[in-house]
Amino acid sequence: MGRTIGPKGFHLKEKGQVMDVEELLRQNRSFRRFYEDRRLDRATLLDLVGLTRLCPSAANRQPLKYRIACSREDTALVFSHLRWASALKDWDGPVEGERPAGYIFILGDTRIATSFNVDPGIVAQSMLLGAVERGLGGCLIGSIDRDKLRRDLAIDDRFAILLAVALGVPKDNVVLEDMQDPDAFDYWRDANGVHHVPKRPLSEVLV
Amino acid sequence: MGRTIGPKGFHLKEKGQVMDVEELLRQNRSFRRFYEDRRLDRATLLDLVGLTRLCPSAANRQPLKYRIACSREDTALVFSHLRWASALKDWDGPVEGERPAGYIFILGDTRIATSFNVDPGIVAQSMLLGAVERGLGGCLIGSIDRDKLRRDLAIDDRFAILLAVALGVPKDNVVLEDMQDPDAFDYWRDANGVHHVPKRPLSEVLV
Repeated sequence: MGRTIGPKGFHLKEKGQVMDVEELLRQNRSFRRFYEDRRLDRATLLDLVGLTRLCPSAANRQPLKYRIACSREDTALVFSHLRWASALKDWDGPVEGERPAGYIFILGDTRIATSFNVDPGIVAQSMLLGAVERGLGGCLIGSIDRDKLRRDLAIDDRFAILLAVALGVPKDNVVLEDMQDPDAFDYWRDANGVHHVPKRPLSEVLV
Repeated sequence: MGRTIGPKGFHLKEKGQVMDVEELLRQNRSFRRFYEDRRLDRATLLDLVGLTRLCPSAANRQPLKYRIACSREDTALVFSHLRWASALKDWDGPVEGERPAGYIFILGDTRIATSFNVDPGIVAQSMLLGAVERGLGGCLIGSIDRDKLRRDLAIDDRFAILLAVALGVPKDNVVLEDMQDPDAFDYWRDANGVHHVPKRPLSEVLV
């Protein structure tokens, strides 16, 4: 804990350079500010979606579908329908120039299943780890104006909008810290813009 | 697709040997038969639980707790409360000698949150990937006789029993295949005991 993870410590994937699982997870912080001009191409996002085909799915139904947004027009539309970092009361989300360069929306196909179980978490985390390996980072966002997003991206009614994976080259500095008080789980940002994330100690999560 | 993953193709983690994310995900099959005599020690399972501290959590609440079971007595108790592989109609689950050598139960602490969002899927997948790296494999099981499990493991009422992660050294051969028919998602086992898992093509999961 206590390591700064962000632009300075961030590893770009080079040929043959891979991380072990702990390092992947450590690098995989929830980033909320990005180098917006470093755009993501559709092929990269398709690669990440492709990883979900290797994930477990309840009863192997695979009811999840994906909508990609990476053009400047689409990402601008999408951004206005997301709510960011509820714990940061005096922050309305990333300013222009620091917004995500792409999104993958995780949708639930209601023709295949009516409940989506733990599948969305599984695929979201898998795509994020794939992003880390590619020198990218992201943030999962569940607080979405679904009606407006559905309208603007023309998402059919048969798909439940489950989760947004916002992606880009991260600009945030994120520090993991041991939580001092079980009720003080809010993340916070210091005067230098460093984002602090308290994590419960192992002893507290074991029953 | 079409690669056999199991004892033959299974990579044990050696010092400095790490896999990229795609390979991790590919090795991470849902294994349902294990070398039961190759026991898991508590330290290994604690390591896996430790990985969850590096995972994202909705609003950073971290409401998930973990109950480990790895003694022969506990794993025998636990086994009888799980239902295995509903798609394999003529199979009641692994026989003695092929059962999991350990379990991690993912619990929801209802004092911290009342809904657990995508957190269980995130931590389950992260622990499974950590298991793969250690030469282990597992299976997520949601079909649990929760009352009996709660009684036998003395799990307090304030914890919702969300998901079981069954673990061990895998004995199954698992093949991923491209799905030929959108409705034919059931996995199946052939006469040689090879487990076949059809996966939807990328074109089908993109909206």
